[in-house]
Amino acid sequence: MENFNIEEYLTVYGKVAKKAAFLMGMADTNKKNTALKAVAEALVDNSEKILKANDIDLENAVKNGMSVAMQDRLRLTEDRIKGMAEGLVQLTSLPDPIGEVIDGFKRPNGLQIVKRRVPLGVLGIIFESRPNVTADAAGLCIKSGNACILRGGKEAINSNIAIAEIFSETLEASGLPKAAVQLIDNTSREVSTAMMKLNDYIDVLIPRGGAGLIRSVVQNATVPVIQTGTGNCHVFVDETADLDMAVNIVMNAKTQRPSVCNAMETLLVHENIAEKFLNAVCVKLKDKNVELRGCEKSKSFFADMNDATEDDWKTEYDDLILAVKVVSGVEEAVEHINNYGTRHSEAIITKNFDNATKFQNEIDASCVYVNASTRFTDGFEFGFGAEIGISNQKLHARGPMGLTELTTFKYLISGNGQCRG
Amino acid sequence: MENFNIEEYLTVYGKVAKKAAFLMGMADTNKKNTALKAVAEALVDNSEKILKANDIDLENAVKNGMSVAMQDRLRLTEDRIKGMAEGLVQLTSLPDPIGEVIDGFKRPNGLQIVKRRVPLGVLGIIFESRPNVTADAAGLCIKSGNACILRGGKEAINSNIAIAEIFSETLEASGLPKAAVQLIDNTSREVSTAMMKLNDYIDVLIPRGGAGLIRSVVQNATVPVIQTGTGNCHVFVDETADLDMAVNIVMNAKTQRPSVCNAMETLLVHENIAEKFLNAVCVKLKDKNVELRGCEKSKSFFADMNDATEDDWKTEYDDLILAVKVVSGVEEAVEHINNYGTRHSEAIITKNFDNATKFQNEIDASCVYVNASTRFTDGFEFGFGAEIGISNQKLHARGPMGLTELTTFKYLISGNGQCRG
Repeated sequence: MENFNIEEYLTVYGKVAKKAAFLMGMADTNKKNTALKAVAEALVDNSEKILKANDIDLENAVKNGMSVAMQDRLRLTEDRIKGMAEGLVQLTSLPDPIGEVIDGFKRPNGLQIVKRRVPLGVLGIIFESRPNVTADAAGLCIKSGNACILRGGKEAINSNIAIAEIFSETLEASGLPKAAVQLIDNTSREVSTAMMKLNDYIDVLIPRGGAGLIRSVVQNATVPVIQTGTGNCHVFVDETADLDMAVNIVMNAKTQRPSVCNAMETLLVHENIAEKFLNAVCVKLKDKNVELRGCEKSKSFFADMNDATEDDWKTEYDDLILAVKVVSGVEEAVEHINNYGTRHSEAIITKNFDNATKFQNEIDASCVYVNASTRFTDGFEFGFGAEIGISNQKLHARGPMGLTELTTFKYLISGNGQCRG
Repeated sequence: MENFNIEEYLTVYGKVAKKAAFLMGMADTNKKNTALKAVAEALVDNSEKILKANDIDLENAVKNGMSVAMQDRLRLTEDRIKGMAEGLVQLTSLPDPIGEVIDGFKRPNGLQIVKRRVPLGVLGIIFESRPNVTADAAGLCIKSGNACILRGGKEAINSNIAIAEIFSETLEASGLPKAAVQLIDNTSREVSTAMMKLNDYIDVLIPRGGAGLIRSVVQNATVPVIQTGTGNCHVFVDETADLDMAVNIVMNAKTQRPSVCNAMETLLVHENIAEKFLNAVCVKLKDKNVELRGCEKSKSFFADMNDATEDDWKTEYDDLILAVKVVSGVEEAVEHINNYGTRHSEAIITKNFDNATKFQNEIDASCVYVNASTRFTDGFEFGFGAEIGISNQKLHARGPMGLTELTTFKYLISGNGQCRG
């Protein structure tokens, strides 16, 4: 890699992305939908090519001693490729957010002001090992009229290149700019860090991946970032809870899919029902192989727990582990969650109106549930369709980010000679 | 400053700000309005105290050889204090954005979802020498239910401390947390840089000031930033323009208040009317002492211009200087603006519908005008009331940022035991 100039390398991506974004912003819905369907077809038609590329990635993974679980995330199959294609076709049935008039009014001086929804421009998506993210993210960018520069993990580089090439070729054949989808083919850390500072060409960065990736982007980026995905979520079972409902919700929030960001990590239980509830739910959790880590009080009601430490309140396990804490009531639950939570998804199970209201008012999170599982924080479950991630920052977007969250707006002002006095 | 630990110092601010933000988010409109009126009164009642503090800043300014223009920005008078107070009273008549239900819907599984507007939390405001920003920014934060940590320029530190103290004391007397308004009393660059990385306590950073300040915040911050204020704005006079209207708008956009971000910096003129229009407008601009810097073609039509260089197309003068370029039509105008503009405010003067539409569709800026002056990009002119700044980034807010732009939302989801299948 002698004479490799990172800035020049990325500027090439940036310049064509900016031109592509301009054209994508002008493209009408039919053209974008037709292209998405064509890409879906092309992905399936080129399954063999994609799987061959994926095989190389998998061979390298084995050589490098990648864990079997990680290999599974990396692996593509005919079915998984069909899944990516179906995702693209689904996008065509969602409404196009671009061009929507969000607001409009006339000023006393006669100026007519219209607030119109437009694409963000060039999105930088930085993600880890799952190659299907390439197709998902690119599809969302196309439908929302953006161009994207994708930077995937080095483990999946061959698979990602194959998928991105099919996008570019098909976009071009559909009369859209092929550079609307570009993949960074140098996966060095230096290039990734430089991409995070490409303010002249990238409008917004969206990292998709684990806490380490998100932290690295937040620390290094000068391009505006939307943080996604860190979820240290809680369920608080109040003293008036319907305990059967609470058991169902706790089981669902912890065990239905423990590896995702909207799964519960800490269970908070009101002291007045702790003995009864913990004895009912903990046996079931144990049956599902959930490791329990409890506070002193929790252990006094259900002994078969490990000790919870301060670290446990802070940890997003993404695994079959649950921290358990007995609290004196909704006040302490709110305090604990606002202190340790990551502003993602939080739930109270209660029949008490005041406590439900207090919890929803006072918890600082993107999604605050009463009597439902935290697992519903998801684009499809909210009716938004496919999502680029779950934002847990407060700027721009919060919660599930669908097509609308990949847009901004501009004010169009029409007059007949108005000057400011 | 031995043993001074920046992290500890800022953590004290951060912790109390976070508590204050929680309470401010719960405060009802009447309480916030009453407090704003009380602060307005207290500012006027304490004019003498504020002016004494301002005198110290002014004495230091003279000692340090500050320019007369800068001294004027720093200077407070009874009238300017009254102006700050009036600004606070005006805020009380604006609608409270907090609690608004932005959206709401029921899902097929019975989950009822409400999207409710809430404050951002803790705002970090970094600004330069004008001490009245302290009152303006603090007022907007109070009305929008946020807490703020203010970091003003060292030149105005005594004035800023005096104003912030009056806020804190009056907030407390009004039953609101005094830490809702805090001023960083250490104005070193190190503290400022550390504040930009205070992610645990500050939700959003808003720099208010010149290009250097904005750049420094964008480069150093890990806290999400809203960029404001850089305005390299253009007016394009098309060949079908009403030339009298065009003259009025150009004069207004350049000379009515040249120091502000929505003033015009480059004039683009269609080649077919360039001779006639430039001869009409340039004499008037010269009469107002505007220095002209033209391209070759411009100079061939109106000789009394300096040469424009590549740098001129990029520069926000904020002064009585105007770059002038003759273009072949709307296509070239759009290309020039999208290339050199800062996505702030851009105008076309034309009678041609297609060109007006093309300009509004294709220009990438927060505000795109047809037949009106760029000077209207302003919170009051848009009917939003007082503003914290003009955003020229695409994330979260674009254009004039009023109270609404200082908010985020959360989803409140109510169910009766729903679990994800």
